[in-house]
Amino acid sequence: MNAAKADLNKDLESLIRSGASNDLTAFIQDLPQVEVIRSISRLNHEDQTTLFALLDPPEAREVIASLPEPAAVQVVENLTPAQAGSIVEGLRGDKNADLLGHLAEADATAILDTLTPTKAQEIRRLMTYPPHSAGGLMITEFLSFPDHYTVRDVLEDLYLKGDAYSDYNIQYAYVVSSGTKKKLIGVLRLRDLLLALRGRNITEVMITQPIFVNVQEPAEFLKRLFDTHNFLGLPVVDVQGELVGVVTRASVERHMAKQSGQVLLKIGGIVGGEEFRTMPLARRSSRRLSWLSLNVVLNIIAASIIALYQDTLVQVIALAVFLPIISDMSGCSGNQAIAVSLRELTLGLINPRELRRVILKESAVGIVNGIALGALLAGVSILWKGNPFLGLVVGSAMALNTILSACLGGVIPLILKRRKIDPALASGPILTTVTDMCGFFLVLSLATLFLGRLT
Amino acid sequence: MNAAKADLNKDLESLIRSGASNDLTAFIQDLPQVEVIRSISRLNHEDQTTLFALLDPPEAREVIASLPEPAAVQVVENLTPAQAGSIVEGLRGDKNADLLGHLAEADATAILDTLTPTKAQEIRRLMTYPPHSAGGLMITEFLSFPDHYTVRDVLEDLYLKGDAYSDYNIQYAYVVSSGTKKKLIGVLRLRDLLLALRGRNITEVMITQPIFVNVQEPAEFLKRLFDTHNFLGLPVVDVQGELVGVVTRASVERHMAKQSGQVLLKIGGIVGGEEFRTMPLARRSSRRLSWLSLNVVLNIIAASIIALYQDTLVQVIALAVFLPIISDMSGCSGNQAIAVSLRELTLGLINPRELRRVILKESAVGIVNGIALGALLAGVSILWKGNPFLGLVVGSAMALNTILSACLGGVIPLILKRRKIDPALASGPILTTVTDMCGFFLVLSLATLFLGRLT
Repeated sequence: MNAAKADLNKDLESLIRSGASNDLTAFIQDLPQVEVIRSISRLNHEDQTTLFALLDPPEAREVIASLPEPAAVQVVENLTPAQAGSIVEGLRGDKNADLLGHLAEADATAILDTLTPTKAQEIRRLMTYPPHSAGGLMITEFLSFPDHYTVRDVLEDLYLKGDAYSDYNIQYAYVVSSGTKKKLIGVLRLRDLLLALRGRNITEVMITQPIFVNVQEPAEFLKRLFDTHNFLGLPVVDVQGELVGVVTRASVERHMAKQSGQVLLKIGGIVGGEEFRTMPLARRSSRRLSWLSLNVVLNIIAASIIALYQDTLVQVIALAVFLPIISDMSGCSGNQAIAVSLRELTLGLINPRELRRVILKESAVGIVNGIALGALLAGVSILWKGNPFLGLVVGSAMALNTILSACLGGVIPLILKRRKIDPALASGPILTTVTDMCGFFLVLSLATLFLGRLT
Repeated sequence: MNAAKADLNKDLESLIRSGASNDLTAFIQDLPQVEVIRSISRLNHEDQTTLFALLDPPEAREVIASLPEPAAVQVVENLTPAQAGSIVEGLRGDKNADLLGHLAEADATAILDTLTPTKAQEIRRLMTYPPHSAGGLMITEFLSFPDHYTVRDVLEDLYLKGDAYSDYNIQYAYVVSSGTKKKLIGVLRLRDLLLALRGRNITEVMITQPIFVNVQEPAEFLKRLFDTHNFLGLPVVDVQGELVGVVTRASVERHMAKQSGQVLLKIGGIVGGEEFRTMPLARRSSRRLSWLSLNVVLNIIAASIIALYQDTLVQVIALAVFLPIISDMSGCSGNQAIAVSLRELTLGLINPRELRRVILKESAVGIVNGIALGALLAGVSILWKGNPFLGLVVGSAMALNTILSACLGGVIPLILKRRKIDPALASGPILTTVTDMCGFFLVLSLATLFLGRLT
């Protein structure tokens, strides 16, 4: 299988280098989607650029649209502005703004300059909305008709421009005011048009006072609306009440999925943007290292507690075995509580101010699990060294630190959220530093207290 | 704000206990969705049951539909079968099967027995499909018409049953064969109906050879189809080619988001199902503990390496400070690689067999970051103790273990995926056990080697 994959990439490379445009387009069309993504992301920059210059523009667009965003950005970065422009122009309204938003400003401007002024202006406007808002998520391909239209006018328009609308989601059409400001005044359901007399004015058929959202509404708000109502799409209006786009249920769901994926990376310590193994080594390495360097410093601070108790440690060297265990287990207990808090925050089941509730709930779990883990560790240490006081020291330190970790892990994400610091990013390092320090302190100070009984 | 929340829950409780059905329905309708979810999940079981008995059935259904799945299951578990039946009956086809699938079999049967045989049979059939398949994700509310219908017949049906269809997603209608087996033969776009002559047969207007999916196709396959095509929904057929449902883009996106959320919990060590703080203590505590117990055993095994080198440790007690640092930092480096692999697996950017590629890519990052972290730690130790050999031992152990962690973290998820073990669940514990053992061994065996220079 590895050999087959290698062949596939070699075939693609040789086709690119031969410059056979038609063969290349056919080859890409025949490949399963997942292989296209895999193969293209593994080409070197030069081959990528040549590939997109050779591919049929519609095929090139489809490929770009199917790549994960960071990969798509990387490809577009390496094309000439004219090549990039012809691809970007044909992408859906939300995708092209997303893509250009990730480029350096000079690159984005160069590409926009190759487009028609109207299209460029439209994309520029979309780029001003935050990606997490209704404005950032909406599409601009929607149907709207002025309020003086009749049902017949609408049907004729649909008939005449049917081809242009073929990609549109035309479950609904919108009725806007006829003036210069196209204010949203109603929603037309396609199925109501089917049943209406053709001579009637569309304002008689439309749903009045339609539900709409403002451009600046955040994705969570939209998610809740779609969760509780059966809409497929909602009209988006700007501050003047003018209809500017439609946000679909699917694009909100996709955005939330992307968010979860990014939380996953952040918790794993991949920060400063997504990482793919096709990225250059320097970028991957330096981003990871910035995170690791911070952690090593925090670790050194925590471990310096151990240095304060060197005399105790020399006399009861067995403690050195238990220090990493207590550090690691506290991390585990705390991370469980962090995971539950992050999840409850995402689902809106908890308010960031409810620290007391979380502490109550977590301390209950912490006490039960702390006693269990403490007893287990005490048992192991007594079996090993035959000294019940060693068991007492190690076991009670483990128990107390488990309770502390559960409570801290539960509240840290809430506190960070309130202070507008990303909880997925910062909760882990803060937790482990504090619980390590407390764990080391508990074991070693208890041991110092019982030193006579331990030696 | 905490006080206001407490009041809100007290108001809800007193309304429930007063038994004022109308006031209660009005109260729930006035609350923002997010408060409804929060308040209801915090009621005790008895109050929850009374609440759903008192609420208007449509309102009760809407509330159940908006709760996160585990919370909804918990509520339904505590209702009488008749109460639960009246709620479940009105839920959308995919939601009711999902909900009943999470109950104990006896409970689900009791509820199904209260429904009409046809409805019960339909839900039973849906419950046979895995939740991750097209069958598990599809809705059964769709429009289909036999192939002898004319455009006029369809329009009349839409007109007459308009109200019954009001919740349907009727962007498309499906044309099926007239026999006993309703085989899918075409797709009708609503907008084509608008423009067609009313006397024509729908087979002349429909799209022939429509794209469809089989009930057993997994969610990833559907996700890729929706990513590369502009469909809003796809017809689902069973093994006999009969049309049984429609899977929408939105439900696939929602399913993928749910999956990511669950990966998040598993990585945090929340296993055996989702956890919410409203669940009983015994369940929360025992699930977390089963995970922690496994980890503490693995930790003890890893730390036993330290016990083998007690003589070295007593002579160079400073090493005890560095053991937890090396253990923790290797965990960090490895988790970064795990996060990238999990992400690349989810996005289909990597094949689980490509171990060599991952090792190459990760070892490059590991070497760069290992040297940097090793040098940092060596510097700190030399500053502290003034002994360059201590720096050499600590620094090179850190460097080597970082390279190892990055490679292991990269490949463990791939190996687990191939062996059909959930990589989100098992990668972390396996990684830390191995890297801890290697880290402790490296520091302590190098220290033993240079013992003369360290004391």
